[in-house]
Amino acid sequence: MNEKLKQLNNIQKELALYNSISSVVAWDQETYMPSEGISGRFEQMAFLRKKSHEIMISDDFFQLAEELSKDSSLSEIDRTMVKRLYEDILDSKKLPSEFVEKFSKYASLGCEAWKKAKDENDFQIFAPKLKVLVDLSREKAKYVGKPGHPYNSLLHGFEEGMTVDKLNETFSYIKPRLKKLLDDILASDTHKNYVDPNITITPENQKKAYEKLAQWMLMPQNRFRIDTSAHAFTTKIAADDVRITTRIEPLPFNSLLKVAHEAGHARYDLGISKDFQYNALEGISSLGMTESQSLFYENIIARGLPFWKKYFEQYKALCNLNGVSLETWFAYLNKINPGPVRLESDEVTYSLHIILRYEIEMELMNGDIEVEDVARRWEEKSLEVLGVKPESDSRGVLQDIHWGWGMFGYFPTYAIGAIYSTQLLDAIQKENAQAIETCDYSFINTWLHENIHKHGRCFTSETLMKNCCGEGLNPTMYVNYLEKNIVIYIKFDY
Amino acid sequence: MNEKLKQLNNIQKELALYNSISSVVAWDQETYMPSEGISGRFEQMAFLRKKSHEIMISDDFFQLAEELSKDSSLSEIDRTMVKRLYEDILDSKKLPSEFVEKFSKYASLGCEAWKKAKDENDFQIFAPKLKVLVDLSREKAKYVGKPGHPYNSLLHGFEEGMTVDKLNETFSYIKPRLKKLLDDILASDTHKNYVDPNITITPENQKKAYEKLAQWMLMPQNRFRIDTSAHAFTTKIAADDVRITTRIEPLPFNSLLKVAHEAGHARYDLGISKDFQYNALEGISSLGMTESQSLFYENIIARGLPFWKKYFEQYKALCNLNGVSLETWFAYLNKINPGPVRLESDEVTYSLHIILRYEIEMELMNGDIEVEDVARRWEEKSLEVLGVKPESDSRGVLQDIHWGWGMFGYFPTYAIGAIYSTQLLDAIQKENAQAIETCDYSFINTWLHENIHKHGRCFTSETLMKNCCGEGLNPTMYVNYLEKNIVIYIKFDY
Repeated sequence: MNEKLKQLNNIQKELALYNSISSVVAWDQETYMPSEGISGRFEQMAFLRKKSHEIMISDDFFQLAEELSKDSSLSEIDRTMVKRLYEDILDSKKLPSEFVEKFSKYASLGCEAWKKAKDENDFQIFAPKLKVLVDLSREKAKYVGKPGHPYNSLLHGFEEGMTVDKLNETFSYIKPRLKKLLDDILASDTHKNYVDPNITITPENQKKAYEKLAQWMLMPQNRFRIDTSAHAFTTKIAADDVRITTRIEPLPFNSLLKVAHEAGHARYDLGISKDFQYNALEGISSLGMTESQSLFYENIIARGLPFWKKYFEQYKALCNLNGVSLETWFAYLNKINPGPVRLESDEVTYSLHIILRYEIEMELMNGDIEVEDVARRWEEKSLEVLGVKPESDSRGVLQDIHWGWGMFGYFPTYAIGAIYSTQLLDAIQKENAQAIETCDYSFINTWLHENIHKHGRCFTSETLMKNCCGEGLNPTMYVNYLEKNIVIYIKFDY
Repeated sequence: MNEKLKQLNNIQKELALYNSISSVVAWDQETYMPSEGISGRFEQMAFLRKKSHEIMISDDFFQLAEELSKDSSLSEIDRTMVKRLYEDILDSKKLPSEFVEKFSKYASLGCEAWKKAKDENDFQIFAPKLKVLVDLSREKAKYVGKPGHPYNSLLHGFEEGMTVDKLNETFSYIKPRLKKLLDDILASDTHKNYVDPNITITPENQKKAYEKLAQWMLMPQNRFRIDTSAHAFTTKIAADDVRITTRIEPLPFNSLLKVAHEAGHARYDLGISKDFQYNALEGISSLGMTESQSLFYENIIARGLPFWKKYFEQYKALCNLNGVSLETWFAYLNKINPGPVRLESDEVTYSLHIILRYEIEMELMNGDIEVEDVARRWEEKSLEVLGVKPESDSRGVLQDIHWGWGMFGYFPTYAIGAIYSTQLLDAIQKENAQAIETCDYSFINTWLHENIHKHGRCFTSETLMKNCCGEGLNPTMYVNYLEKNIVIYIKFDY
């Protein structure tokens, strides 16, 4: 074997091990760590981050990657791997260390200020830190230096190749159509006559049900586990060890939907080819792509009628839902009810929430509004886009932590995921028209594995989509899917 | 601050962080890791071990420690710390790297062979590997080179300063007295008329009870947690994060006693002065000393009559033990019933199990018996010391994994712990005669904290004992304690 490649792979493996060890430690922090363990945990996490950062910026690593990126004797897959890695290193080198440190410091301060502001329901507590983070993000965009709009450079970190032009085109297609759909729903008799069935399920039964759901979806039992934490998440610890969490909430089906959602992420992580273990190809192609997997399992499967036709009787028994009909349950689960909060939203309003955030981020980046005006602007936009005004800053402009972390350009990936998921559905149905109707998860899982998961980071999301769906991001299918699904909801057309 | 000391402390902190991160990862492996995560976990653990080993054997570290060990300008506590560290490094340098590697390889093979042998109930499967490990241990003793009997060098790694002479003196005092005590018990009417009450407690109720026990013993809720695993253990993850595990067994009180036991270890780990965080003083003084803590809470407290007088009614309610009297429960918990298995033994026979192992280890080290004869010798000794012949190799010579790891010189620390625990009891009662009777755990915990826990590795166990009990290891109190306790057991003298 090429000696330099061997050296590079050894360094990559160290890097991957530091990261995978960090994942164990971070998972533990969110699930089982005794609360006072936090100061010791900060030390451990900072140490692991420092170690992996040292590798990432080391001259040896860069020189090896650079040399090997010009080595045409490598196998095709090694060339792909080296290219990915070299780009990663170049990306990380674009940001000066002092800038990264400064950003990280203000992200901590931003998070803290955001929490305080949310607790006290006062956006102005957060505003000064947000202002710095907006300025730093503009600076970051300059360092990254992608062509076109500066926001393209922010998108790059989350969704390689995505651009403002493409997003504007996509969102301007979606926005009026979803608003029209929402208006139709709100005007429908079904909606007007809806009576809340007031269902409760004990936490123990919710747990039984979501553990069962993982089995129904054919999640591999010995490579996967589910725990509870304050916020649902997925983490990959090793090729055969991926973990998700959910949380018990007032709405009794949310813990289940979150498990379906995170299981979609987990399936992606578990499906990456083991040939890529401990190297730069062992990862997801983009945030939008992994979100397409989670939303596929959450919305298309676990909110879908075929799933409930097949499993409702078992679910009902598990959860003690005597007397609740399939119709009542399905309407309860899919109720369209525009509110101010993204995480409480339904399939129709979800992307409208994202568009709201995207439009405000663009205004901020462009300097069209001042940070001080964001709360006011949020209220205006919420009314315009969703038809509701948030009752408080906490449930409006302060509902999401992302800006506290200085993460601009992240939100659009949620909508991209929703769109991709429906394009994938279409492609799957072209190959097997009955896959969804018959709950053939074996077929669906295998299809997604072959077309998406196993490729890791070999391709961009755009390329993956072109390869399996014939085209990149296209919102037509998404709007069609929602329109079709809503017919079921409005007419109870089983 | 002394620049070299600062450098040394930075390296020590890296070492401590690698070790504490290993603890998180190892804890996870024993508690929640999906089974197929094991191969990824081996990579992570090997990597962390390699990294901490690299620090331990680095020239920089050694040179700094050596220079500072001669620096008389250091504060007293820094001098103590540097001395400890320098000794640790010197100890680790005594064993050549190739030898450590070889030992570690055969320890893996030994464990594997032990497991297979135990599963198939055939000592001879284990014998060839055991032979190598005995030879390697003799070699190890030479490298360590403590004065006197080679076994002193093996003891050194577990119980600093302990010697064969001291152990022989101690065990020859204990052995005839415990055997006499056992004979008296077996001849007593109480023992002969004992009827097994056949109590069962559901795993859920056992869990409720042991969680409650931790509260009764004033374990700090936010710095400590209890999980279940295949074998009970304690692990320190950070100064404010110590975790224990227990396991649910056929005998319904074992999960509780294990929690009491591990909570004793945990209290020690949690009590070490935070001044020693991330340096060589942050640890236990010896294995015998930490075992004295676990046995104190397991035997003296949780098997004791005062505890049950106070808590039996609550325990009974938690565990649904309607109709069971305190007398029945107490006799059930303290039944003396010599059997072949150490982990199923009672307070009276426990140290006899240790003496059996010690005597065989000495015969092996001295070359008085061959490894091939160990199974036969075990049966003879078991009959002589405990009065019972094991019904199989699995429940006899193969019951403990320690020899599979190549750990000779470890077993005596269990008996040392049992002896120390009663010396500590005596010292506590001299200061507060009612502490045990009144279940004054606040007093007891504080006393042990002040006299043992907080000192970390500042002193040897011998010194700690002399400081708080006026003398080092002395088995008189231990035998007295057992004789006195057995009066309670035999006569039901409440």
